[in-house]
Amino acid sequence: MDLIEFFERKNINFLSKREEMIPYVKDASYFPGSLPRAVVLPKDENEISEVLSKCNEENVKVVTRGGGTSLTGSSASIQDSIVISTLRLNKILDFSGGDRYVHAQAGVRIDDLNGFLQSKGFVYPPDPASSLASTVGGTISTNAGGLRGTYYGSTKEWVLGLGVVLADGKIIKTGGKVLKRSIGYDLTSIFIGAEGTLGIIYDAYLKIVPKIERFQRLLAFFNKPEDLGKAVFQLKDRGLNPLGAEFADKISMNIISRISGISIPSGSEMLLILDIPIQEVNEYEKALSIIKEVNPIDVKILNQTESELVYKARKGLYSALLNEREREGEFIIIGDVVVPSSEVPESLKEIQELIKRFGLKTSLFGHIGDGNIHANIFTNLNSKEEMEKAEKFLEELGDVALAHHGSVSAEHGIGYEKKNLLMKEFMYKNSPTNLDLMKSIKRIFDPNNILNPGKVFDL
Amino acid sequence: MDLIEFFERKNINFLSKREEMIPYVKDASYFPGSLPRAVVLPKDENEISEVLSKCNEENVKVVTRGGGTSLTGSSASIQDSIVISTLRLNKILDFSGGDRYVHAQAGVRIDDLNGFLQSKGFVYPPDPASSLASTVGGTISTNAGGLRGTYYGSTKEWVLGLGVVLADGKIIKTGGKVLKRSIGYDLTSIFIGAEGTLGIIYDAYLKIVPKIERFQRLLAFFNKPEDLGKAVFQLKDRGLNPLGAEFADKISMNIISRISGISIPSGSEMLLILDIPIQEVNEYEKALSIIKEVNPIDVKILNQTESELVYKARKGLYSALLNEREREGEFIIIGDVVVPSSEVPESLKEIQELIKRFGLKTSLFGHIGDGNIHANIFTNLNSKEEMEKAEKFLEELGDVALAHHGSVSAEHGIGYEKKNLLMKEFMYKNSPTNLDLMKSIKRIFDPNNILNPGKVFDL
Repeated sequence: MDLIEFFERKNINFLSKREEMIPYVKDASYFPGSLPRAVVLPKDENEISEVLSKCNEENVKVVTRGGGTSLTGSSASIQDSIVISTLRLNKILDFSGGDRYVHAQAGVRIDDLNGFLQSKGFVYPPDPASSLASTVGGTISTNAGGLRGTYYGSTKEWVLGLGVVLADGKIIKTGGKVLKRSIGYDLTSIFIGAEGTLGIIYDAYLKIVPKIERFQRLLAFFNKPEDLGKAVFQLKDRGLNPLGAEFADKISMNIISRISGISIPSGSEMLLILDIPIQEVNEYEKALSIIKEVNPIDVKILNQTESELVYKARKGLYSALLNEREREGEFIIIGDVVVPSSEVPESLKEIQELIKRFGLKTSLFGHIGDGNIHANIFTNLNSKEEMEKAEKFLEELGDVALAHHGSVSAEHGIGYEKKNLLMKEFMYKNSPTNLDLMKSIKRIFDPNNILNPGKVFDL
Repeated sequence: MDLIEFFERKNINFLSKREEMIPYVKDASYFPGSLPRAVVLPKDENEISEVLSKCNEENVKVVTRGGGTSLTGSSASIQDSIVISTLRLNKILDFSGGDRYVHAQAGVRIDDLNGFLQSKGFVYPPDPASSLASTVGGTISTNAGGLRGTYYGSTKEWVLGLGVVLADGKIIKTGGKVLKRSIGYDLTSIFIGAEGTLGIIYDAYLKIVPKIERFQRLLAFFNKPEDLGKAVFQLKDRGLNPLGAEFADKISMNIISRISGISIPSGSEMLLILDIPIQEVNEYEKALSIIKEVNPIDVKILNQTESELVYKARKGLYSALLNEREREGEFIIIGDVVVPSSEVPESLKEIQELIKRFGLKTSLFGHIGDGNIHANIFTNLNSKEEMEKAEKFLEELGDVALAHHGSVSAEHGIGYEKKNLLMKEFMYKNSPTNLDLMKSIKRIFDPNNILNPGKVFDL
């Protein structure tokens, strides 16, 4: 029986008209994606199970889509595939502050989740810049990081359990309400960062905290990237624990200044946005004196209003950069690498040299507190030459990260974009077997390779 | 070629005399273990690799042993097996406070690791009561918890990367120095809690923190277990974040009193040891008033000396209980379950009813802050009847945990002891496929089933 008929007979909500499906083709990456056969909007895991077992029988590819904010192509749709959108799985199912969990469906947006939690006096710490649109399922599938990662870690540290539909339609539940368990292999973590290639996450138990620690936000301006890097390392090396540490180069700094209204001292090449916990005032004093040791041009202590404006500006930076595009067909390809804090000064220097050498308009910002550097490359998607240049740049960016004991992907995943770099990272560590193991795991969970094929690696 | 010859020819350090091997047969559980063929003490991963590829060829079982502190039989040796002891892999290889990692070999003891880190002003948060003897590799292999788990989480949240030798002798490296990465399937987490059945961990990158938050330790005495449970839940539900919350019943309380010299008010049935962060004094005041709402018999604020004595007493509780044994052949089987905080009051009540019904001398203590309850059952190992009773008790203890949305194993793993309970947990969640997935994963990593066979599950 034809799939469309099947959906109709089963009374499963779907779209199949070209115009209706267009919004489900691309994600936030530069990969075009292709028109699927249909976009299915299941109302629960049982419908997902019916669709998957049918697709598995008929060998139809399936792409799962949350907020579609992937920057590496993880959620870009595939020719002739079925796209499963989690749009309707948007309920918060259960919450217990005292038990420290919230149980949410995969399609719940991170900002909606935290809006709900804040009203109860709790917070889900992961805070990707895309939190307005990105979802519980999507951020788990890419092990998303964000602006609070340096203190609270990545998504993987906040998932207690998952509800997952496997390729053959089987429904499994991993973990659950309790904060710890030791019951054999960690089936929850296997799905974190798997980018929808091992199963479809339909709900999750997430760990929460009563509140974000109190902090003072300050800005420090530097004329040398190394100095900024040294400041962050010195803070951490001398026992301070920033709640957040974001950086921005000149292009991004100017945007933040424009949005927040905060002026930039002349000669500033690099901006550090630093959140220091103020449970102990002397900690804050200590932080200030450490920053002043690495000759900043200026340090600004922000009041509440400025503080919020700067945060908003930093969070909206990628969108704001998109408004800086001047050419027809221009797009921003966002690089995402991570290095140890001690390697940040040298890495930033080398990356700026790369930028000069490639002569591509590029802006740097990122979560410098955990060594995460984003390189935003302005590229004309219609120019074969520019695209090749950009891809070469991304590869060399990855080389810099590897040379400094880092990783080619910090928080955006692999998708289509970094399949070669993934292999390169394993080769660099002299551990090529890692990729074989991943492929063997894939074959267990998805023997017919119907789930998001061609993403992360090729079988 | 015979294995012993092989070790000699390769010049690999080993023991094969009965007397020499005895200390490597049993672990801290009640499972006797059997004499292995030899105990190998490799000096590095290359020797482990040589031994494993040889054992894999010849289908010889391999049991890896760290501190031998397992309470479920995970490290009990197997008839005719080769025991690989990590005793000589005891070096701290690298450390960077500013980068927030320490790189240690698998055989490093947790207390030695933290001794080193404290001298640098840093801490590795996981703090199992067995930290004097337990090792980096062993605590990773059981996802160990401990006394700081309620605030800092379990071991799985502190492992950045691993060096592992696979069953066929291949050496792989997962993760590494950086604090985040999103590069496909999480090969680090697969080995956490795997109890040496998927590979042999030879070193690990561990995440560290600059310091443990400042806190005030206090004791609260209750005559009803429900009240103690309510106190902890109320604290957490109203936004407090205890750094530690330990409980002890009458038997254990008396031991703590004896060791610490702190007197117990009459009528006390349950003791709560609570560590409240004092970054914000009002938090501490708030905690006190919440506890006083649930009618404690008394609340004691401890000074520094008392504070340390109580901690020492709590950490030594299991060993101290062992000294309470009065009968020949008597042993303590320690149950380990976890439930959500809101279910603790009811669970404690039901568990105390179990104890009455079974009429076995049993003492309760545990990490109540994360809902982890240990039931210590005094059992005569030589009495078939008592052993059957104890096993039945453990099973019903697991039932209580499951009925209250908890887990049959919080931090001690599965080993030999809980294979049935593991299946029961998956059935209870209506997710039996979990076990099939674990078995398929096992077959990828260890196709000949030589690594710690018969632990966690039977293939």
